[in-house]
Amino acid sequence: MGFLRFTLFLSLFSVAFSLESLNSRLLPRPLIIQYPENIETLFQESAEELQLQCTSWRFAVEANNLSPWKTIPPECSDYVKDYIMGRAYGIDIERVSKEAEDYARSVELGEDGKDAWVFDVDETLLSNLPYYTDHGYGLEVFDSVKFDKWVETAMAPPIESSLKLYEEVSKLGFKVFLLTGRGEKQRGVTVENLINAGFRDWDKLILRASEDHAKLATVYKSEKRNEMVEEGYRILGNSGDQWSDLLGYSMSTRSFKLPNPMYYIP
Amino acid sequence: MGFLRFTLFLSLFSVAFSLESLNSRLLPRPLIIQYPENIETLFQESAEELQLQCTSWRFAVEANNLSPWKTIPPECSDYVKDYIMGRAYGIDIERVSKEAEDYARSVELGEDGKDAWVFDVDETLLSNLPYYTDHGYGLEVFDSVKFDKWVETAMAPPIESSLKLYEEVSKLGFKVFLLTGRGEKQRGVTVENLINAGFRDWDKLILRASEDHAKLATVYKSEKRNEMVEEGYRILGNSGDQWSDLLGYSMSTRSFKLPNPMYYIP
Repeated sequence: MGFLRFTLFLSLFSVAFSLESLNSRLLPRPLIIQYPENIETLFQESAEELQLQCTSWRFAVEANNLSPWKTIPPECSDYVKDYIMGRAYGIDIERVSKEAEDYARSVELGEDGKDAWVFDVDETLLSNLPYYTDHGYGLEVFDSVKFDKWVETAMAPPIESSLKLYEEVSKLGFKVFLLTGRGEKQRGVTVENLINAGFRDWDKLILRASEDHAKLATVYKSEKRNEMVEEGYRILGNSGDQWSDLLGYSMSTRSFKLPNPMYYIP
Repeated sequence: MGFLRFTLFLSLFSVAFSLESLNSRLLPRPLIIQYPENIETLFQESAEELQLQCTSWRFAVEANNLSPWKTIPPECSDYVKDYIMGRAYGIDIERVSKEAEDYARSVELGEDGKDAWVFDVDETLLSNLPYYTDHGYGLEVFDSVKFDKWVETAMAPPIESSLKLYEEVSKLGFKVFLLTGRGEKQRGVTVENLINAGFRDWDKLILRASEDHAKLATVYKSEKRNEMVEEGYRILGNSGDQWSDLLGYSMSTRSFKLPNPMYYIP
């Protein structure tokens, strides 16, 4: 700001000076130019304040401090869009995958084939951004009918750094379990979409059975993880964009929370 | 940037113009002023990149995605200092307390006096910023001898929004349990410091006994929470700046993670 002000001052001074010397008869009165200090400062301060508040909201989301929320705060809609469509979301997602990869490589696996990695699907392996771009990045209340139509297209692209992690984890010898909140009736399109997106050779794809539909995601996913544990699996890693993918019981040794400021699933 | 460039251009143009008209005999050659476009743009781009990367690192910290770390990344030292000493840390801390307060008020307490709230002490109730300000905000490796000397002064100020939450939670009828990683030999100064800082009437202050010193904080704190549960307490809320205050077993119904990008306790 200091530089900007100085430059503006210099500019006004020298414009005035040059006009004064050339056109003094046309402009006999001193030329008074008012510097619009307040307007610009106030505008900038209010933009900075909004940035601070929305960043703080996003941290509260990622640290799981908020009560269940249905839509993003309306005043943060531009902020969330900029975050998602700019570089920050990509950088954050890559960092999570990289941390997870470093960890996966550092673990010594047993020889019984019982070491497992659990992946959530939506916003973890597959990106629904083409849908959310058309629906305000979380500003609209979730509409399951519209969303299911999108799911039926099987067009969700992969989250590239997750695909890389997925392949690495498979190669290292982990059992790969996909655990999604999608229902059994979407099994066909989900398989189709995963294959379209480049995912191969998972060991199990678990979807909600009819008796699971009324359960909170935290409960449903804990139950399914617990079944794995009872079958003798050691869940060493778990990747998900929702805390309900990661918390509860029979939790993974390490959990990796992908960013998602667009929606919340309890 | 557009405005800045335009102003700079205007400034240079009009300086040149006024000099030209007044001093043409002194400056017979055309005046060429080169606009340092690249330098400024590159400088700004690299500052923005660092901001993005350090924000991403801070998110990874707060979402518990990182392996145990001993110091903040050196390239983020200014970033962390600006975060802590600017408004952002304060805004984040107030948001956590506000969320916790809203939740505490929304809960219906039993009549048996068995509803409990657990608070960590350092960077949750008490702020050690006077110490960390002198030690690079997490850039220096933790030095327990130096830190213990600071603890002995009993001068840590309260985190004001946590004090407000503490008082509200007590007033609502929660049992208040303070669960800290400090050792029993620091009980005296810890009590003195808490009272100096305005905290009153906690129900229990739990410090590490000699047999707890070798334990990871997650294990030690889980064990202590489990003792509460076995005594019949329902842990409804838990406030802490470390994930090791909150995760493990016998977890609280709701946990509130205060920000702390300065250090990590496993």
